[in-house]
Amino acid sequence: MDLEALYRDLHSHPELAFAELRTAGIVADHLTGFGLEVVTGIGGTGVVGILRNGDGPTVLLRADMDALPVREETGLEWASTQTVVDETGATVPVMHACGHDIHITCLLGAVEALADSRSEWSGTLVALFQPAEEHGGGAQVMVEDGLYEKVPTPDVVLGQHVTPLPSGMLGAHSGAAMAAVDTMEVTLHGRGGHGSRPETTIDPVVMAAATVLRLQTVVSREIAPQDTAVVTVGSLHAGSANNIIAPKATLGISMRSFSEEVRERVLGAVDRIVRAEAAASGAVEEPTVKFGERYPVTVNEPEATARVTAAFTSEFGEDRIFDPGAISGSEDVGNLATAAGVPLVYWMLGGGDPATVAAAMAAGTVDTDIPSNHSPYFAPLAQPTIDTGVRALVVAAREWLTEH
Amino acid sequence: MDLEALYRDLHSHPELAFAELRTAGIVADHLTGFGLEVVTGIGGTGVVGILRNGDGPTVLLRADMDALPVREETGLEWASTQTVVDETGATVPVMHACGHDIHITCLLGAVEALADSRSEWSGTLVALFQPAEEHGGGAQVMVEDGLYEKVPTPDVVLGQHVTPLPSGMLGAHSGAAMAAVDTMEVTLHGRGGHGSRPETTIDPVVMAAATVLRLQTVVSREIAPQDTAVVTVGSLHAGSANNIIAPKATLGISMRSFSEEVRERVLGAVDRIVRAEAAASGAVEEPTVKFGERYPVTVNEPEATARVTAAFTSEFGEDRIFDPGAISGSEDVGNLATAAGVPLVYWMLGGGDPATVAAAMAAGTVDTDIPSNHSPYFAPLAQPTIDTGVRALVVAAREWLTEH
Amino acid sequence: MDLEALYRDLHSHPELAFAELRTAGIVADHLTGFGLEVVTGIGGTGVVGILRNGDGPTVLLRADMDALPVREETGLEWASTQTVVDETGATVPVMHACGHDIHITCLLGAVEALADSRSEWSGTLVALFQPAEEHGGGAQVMVEDGLYEKVPTPDVVLGQHVTPLPSGMLGAHSGAAMAAVDTMEVTLHGRGGHGSRPETTIDPVVMAAATVLRLQTVVSREIAPQDTAVVTVGSLHAGSANNIIAPKATLGISMRSFSEEVRERVLGAVDRIVRAEAAASGAVEEPTVKFGERYPVTVNEPEATARVTAAFTSEFGEDRIFDPGAISGSEDVGNLATAAGVPLVYWMLGGGDPATVAAAMAAGTVDTDIPSNHSPYFAPLAQPTIDTGVRALVVAAREWLTEH
Amino acid sequence: MDLEALYRDLHSHPELAFAELRTAGIVADHLTGFGLEVVTGIGGTGVVGILRNGDGPTVLLRADMDALPVREETGLEWASTQTVVDETGATVPVMHACGHDIHITCLLGAVEALADSRSEWSGTLVALFQPAEEHGGGAQVMVEDGLYEKVPTPDVVLGQHVTPLPSGMLGAHSGAAMAAVDTMEVTLHGRGGHGSRPETTIDPVVMAAATVLRLQTVVSREIAPQDTAVVTVGSLHAGSANNIIAPKATLGISMRSFSEEVRERVLGAVDRIVRAEAAASGAVEEPTVKFGERYPVTVNEPEATARVTAAFTSEFGEDRIFDPGAISGSEDVGNLATAAGVPLVYWMLGGGDPATVAAAMAAGTVDTDIPSNHSPYFAPLAQPTIDTGVRALVVAAREWLTEH
Repeated sequence: MDLEALYRDLHSHPELAFAELRTAGIVADHLTGFGLEVVTGIGGTGVVGILRNGDGPTVLLRADMDALPVREETGLEWASTQTVVDETGATVPVMHACGHDIHITCLLGAVEALADSRSEWSGTLVALFQPAEEHGGGAQVMVEDGLYEKVPTPDVVLGQHVTPLPSGMLGAHSGAAMAAVDTMEVTLHGRGGHGSRPETTIDPVVMAAATVLRLQTVVSREIAPQDTAVVTVGSLHAGSANNIIAPKATLGISMRSFSEEVRERVLGAVDRIVRAEAAASGAVEEPTVKFGERYPVTVNEPEATARVTAAFTSEFGEDRIFDPGAISGSEDVGNLATAAGVPLVYWMLGGGDPATVAAAMAAGTVDTDIPSNHSPYFAPLAQPTIDTGVRALVVAAREWLTEH
Repeated sequence: MDLEALYRDLHSHPELAFAELRTAGIVADHLTGFGLEVVTGIGGTGVVGILRNGDGPTVLLRADMDALPVREETGLEWASTQTVVDETGATVPVMHACGHDIHITCLLGAVEALADSRSEWSGTLVALFQPAEEHGGGAQVMVEDGLYEKVPTPDVVLGQHVTPLPSGMLGAHSGAAMAAVDTMEVTLHGRGGHGSRPETTIDPVVMAAATVLRLQTVVSREIAPQDTAVVTVGSLHAGSANNIIAPKATLGISMRSFSEEVRERVLGAVDRIVRAEAAASGAVEEPTVKFGERYPVTVNEPEATARVTAAFTSEFGEDRIFDPGAISGSEDVGNLATAAGVPLVYWMLGGGDPATVAAAMAAGTVDTDIPSNHSPYFAPLAQPTIDTGVRALVVAAREWLTEH
Repeated sequence: MDLEALYRDLHSHPELAFAELRTAGIVADHLTGFGLEVVTGIGGTGVVGILRNGDGPTVLLRADMDALPVREETGLEWASTQTVVDETGATVPVMHACGHDIHITCLLGAVEALADSRSEWSGTLVALFQPAEEHGGGAQVMVEDGLYEKVPTPDVVLGQHVTPLPSGMLGAHSGAAMAAVDTMEVTLHGRGGHGSRPETTIDPVVMAAATVLRLQTVVSREIAPQDTAVVTVGSLHAGSANNIIAPKATLGISMRSFSEEVRERVLGAVDRIVRAEAAASGAVEEPTVKFGERYPVTVNEPEATARVTAAFTSEFGEDRIFDPGAISGSEDVGNLATAAGVPLVYWMLGGGDPATVAAAMAAGTVDTDIPSNHSPYFAPLAQPTIDTGVRALVVAAREWLTEH
Repeated sequence: MDLEALYRDLHSHPELAFAELRTAGIVADHLTGFGLEVVTGIGGTGVVGILRNGDGPTVLLRADMDALPVREETGLEWASTQTVVDETGATVPVMHACGHDIHITCLLGAVEALADSRSEWSGTLVALFQPAEEHGGGAQVMVEDGLYEKVPTPDVVLGQHVTPLPSGMLGAHSGAAMAAVDTMEVTLHGRGGHGSRPETTIDPVVMAAATVLRLQTVVSREIAPQDTAVVTVGSLHAGSANNIIAPKATLGISMRSFSEEVRERVLGAVDRIVRAEAAASGAVEEPTVKFGERYPVTVNEPEATARVTAAFTSEFGEDRIFDPGAISGSEDVGNLATAAGVPLVYWMLGGGDPATVAAAMAAGTVDTDIPSNHSPYFAPLAQPTIDTGVRALVVAAREWLTEH
């Protein structure tokens, strides 16, 4: 299989969350071609290939398939020009700006390699391609759609994510590796009226402002300095005219944390503050709180992580292994392991041009010069990224599969 | 002329600010029919009729012509079903929700009466129909388009506004009668980024929240308790996702005051706070402040107002005269008088159903039960409102015109 | 009686609230000397003289007796050098910095004049000298000590206050003349701890700061622009070290208003905000709210005020009468009228040097150059202030007393 | 030397910062008795003993001598009943509530042991007893008083601090081990006036409240979630009456951080916010910022720390060694190493009753049940704490001194 051609094709044809129809079709075709049993339509567009290869452990390898509503600016020959029309009639550009095209390519390459080498190992390989990692919680949707009734429950869940670090590098952070994220939309209910008669209203702009400022105290006062949490009010909308007091304000809030204890404290404090600030304004209606995406802490099980790291070190040499540390971004791969009650190991795979990264690190301009995930300029190198990603999946899987 | 039919026709065909083409045409036709010299196209759609009737003072009578983007709910037989398509392609309903149809009707009626009775007086009558009182500052636009080079400069400016008070009543408040209003759109410039990495950003939502709370202190701390000012942040918009920190926030602010001294203090304080709060956030770019409508205090010159009030009392009897007090709404009629350097008298004309108003006053439900200006239910009675308004204009004008 | 000598003696011997022992003694002696029936010790140091002079209305004339803890800087020959030792052992200077010495002098002068002229009128004169106007609510204390069981209930309550306006001038503002004031001490309960471990605490400094900012919205958003209210957090105290989080914060709040409706709205809003901001902080204990002085709106009954104003105009000529407008300072004289259910007229008596005041007004420096009440430099001219004040009380009283 | 008796004597005679006269005398006597060269009066009450023992490295061992203004509640037989009278005349209790008595005792014990065993090693021993660790920055004061001109510059600085962890345990955290702390007193200048006339004032309470709330955003928005910083406004004082607006407010702020980069960002942000919030209030005078204690990050040099940890492990066995992690408390010992340009190793020495600590850990009540440093109940066990501390200093010193 020409993996680079596959990657370029996927890159040119990105699809948004739960709309990965063409992508799922290509994946299913290849899995079938490699001789796997294929289950499609789990959680909408999810696809799973199963290779039952005798007794032994079951290993789940995971890739995510969805792209992002970003207008590509990479200048790549195979850059996306795809668009879709959203529910409001607006035209939305689509781009693989988070490298899921690389993830799919690597996993298909690894399945091919493991299928080709099936005489060397026994056990069961489960290759899972999930929808909607960016938006919609596709992993949990697959679980709730009966994933583990439809495919074998694994003994370990393995996966990887491409990052702007130098191509050829890879590594997993043991323990809490990526943040939990909880998102909510809060509607604050005031009472509208004319801007010249504030006394007849309950001003939702003032209510929202007081709420935003108070929310800053969750991190500054309620979380231990040594712990890590983020509370961001990303969006705030109220009113449409400067002289009309609107009836309500809407806040989009995201909260990140690295432990359940901190997560619960953050969620409790945000809820308490939102309600109390509405009360301070004399709101007659409680705020409406609607949760959006909620991803757990991505926890790499220490023992399994140590195994994978040792295997990587042996395969690639110590110089190519790094510890990415705890990352404040979030992932839903953990739901697949949690639902099965088994360890997860999720590693970072470098995709950046090593020379560019080295120059930026020397200049102290990594943050500004290296396009990161979700940027319209995010363009991981195809190689040695794909080769490394394929070998990493194979090596990690064979740590669990029974060697012959 | 059938004034009620004219009113119903105008009510059925409302036009938004600077788009009063049909209305201006009807006005010009009538003025021509009454034998006046007509100048059209002043300040876009403004129309002025001039009746030069020998030596004597020049009196300017003013009406405004524009309607509002409101979907009419009055249930009147002649209710508006008009819509227009705005620049974004959206369909916008249009309604005479502020009674400018009554104003036009009364002024045309008064011109007819004064033209018919021209043997009884001498002087010059200027009947001015301005565009865009609601939005766009049509009075000032006419002034800046050379109004007083095109038509005689008056010795007094007179006008009226219909209100929900009982039809048949009228009266002017001497001195500061309506508030000055200044509106501004403030764009606060932060620096965008991912919601999980606030330290790489300058969060405009926090900057906006701190600004809104600080703006409350303008009225609470900087304006004397005995003075009157309002600072309303009517709209606040920032960001489109809960986990992305936006690069900017936009605030729509309106400020009301009843004296130039207070007005200047409010404007100075708002400007100071907006800039300092941006500085507190470490904003690298100063806020962008763009003024919108700015209407002066509507000041009824005391001596002229006393003359008009005496004339009204004599014409209608003391029982129909009331002092509406200082109103926190705003008007741009004052610009016509200021530009001419002459007195203004601007009175309120009752248009409500007396029985309904009386019942609501008895029940203490005026605020909730009587639809006020700009409401989709605002429907002044045609009569005796129009007759009263016509007679009021005629009586007031003849206070200045030389009697024969 | 040498009124100027009396005034200088009182000025040299100021006494704080409820400690007006020497003063009350002097007052009682004079009243006895004029032949009045004297009741002492009402509400502590209050003294009332009663002159029963046949049938007719009862008129209550009121003066207040207490001084202030201010170190006098007037440079007057008869300046106070008095001090007292407070409960903490500190030495506190005392000064008649609010002119109560003038009030006492004028009232004794008026009693003498009315006693001397008793053949010209009939009725009952009640001359009331109250303690503790500045601090402690002496009027209400007298009422609650059975004032109107001990002395005749009046038909009208009359009084005056000296101000820095030109000596010889006087006048009453009809209606709401002086503000209601309500004061409270609010203790916010947090949880203390080390400054490096905020997560183990509930930070009362943050709680207090959020409360103060939110309290600004009472005036800016909840009171109609045309109404008048003031909410001032005059004191805020928390903590004693920069690295220790204190267990509590204390706020001293004063609230002023000119109507019962506004007063209730302010009190309700402050209470609501204080409690909700504690809840937003997660306080486990409700704030402790302790009211201090609470003085009602001083309302001059319009009909009675018109009578007094007419009498003053006739006595002093139109040029010496002014309308002081609504004053945001507060008084407790209203409690004497409210408890009796009768009208109050309370006027301002000019005490400033006319030339100095005129110069300051011309220069626009009244606020900075003219020492006002409570200033260490407050020094009303003895004359014509005292003569005017005596005559004003006599003239006003005789408006009610039956003339022979 | 009877170390326990020495400890009990020191504990009974605590002295505040820069007043350690008795303590310094005892220390100097002992040092002289052990045959060391003694320099006194460095930085006020600082004492250094020097033992020049042939060629070889120079090792500085450090103890701090000052006590705290805390009323002892331990109930120990040798509890302090000492008090001092402060500059305001108040009586202040004094207690060794931070274990410096243990530090002195252990260091004198170690000096004795090293002096007794001088034939076994060569090099130079510098035993430094500093004043004013709690308050006043005694280490830096000694440096600025010419410390390293008066005593040999060391090759390494070693020290220890007693904690409530179980007696017998000890360990150093490599890298940033204790926080930097910077403290400041900020005076915000407003303009005072009467509480009823806020428009004539610049309200410092509102200015302070806005500043406090804005300071919360330093940690919540400007410091990376993975970094650690604390900004605490421990004290806030303004005004003395509820109806007087004060001219100024005073804030006591402490800031903690674990790296110079974060420290600079915090200091810059606090300074920026304090100034901008004053500007937002229209303050005519810049805030006055006065720094208090400023202690650097206590950084244990990794290589030297590894050496010490290995030596401790060998001496005490692995079971008694723990890594205390980064502690948000602060120390000034780092200034001694920084000024010399040499490595620091500063370890924690357990002093708690092992059984009590174990029970509290089992019950999850360590935070509430175990009195920590600065508590009036802080009472480390004398033994095996002192023995362990003496041996630890000796073992660590001999890692550098040349062994014979």
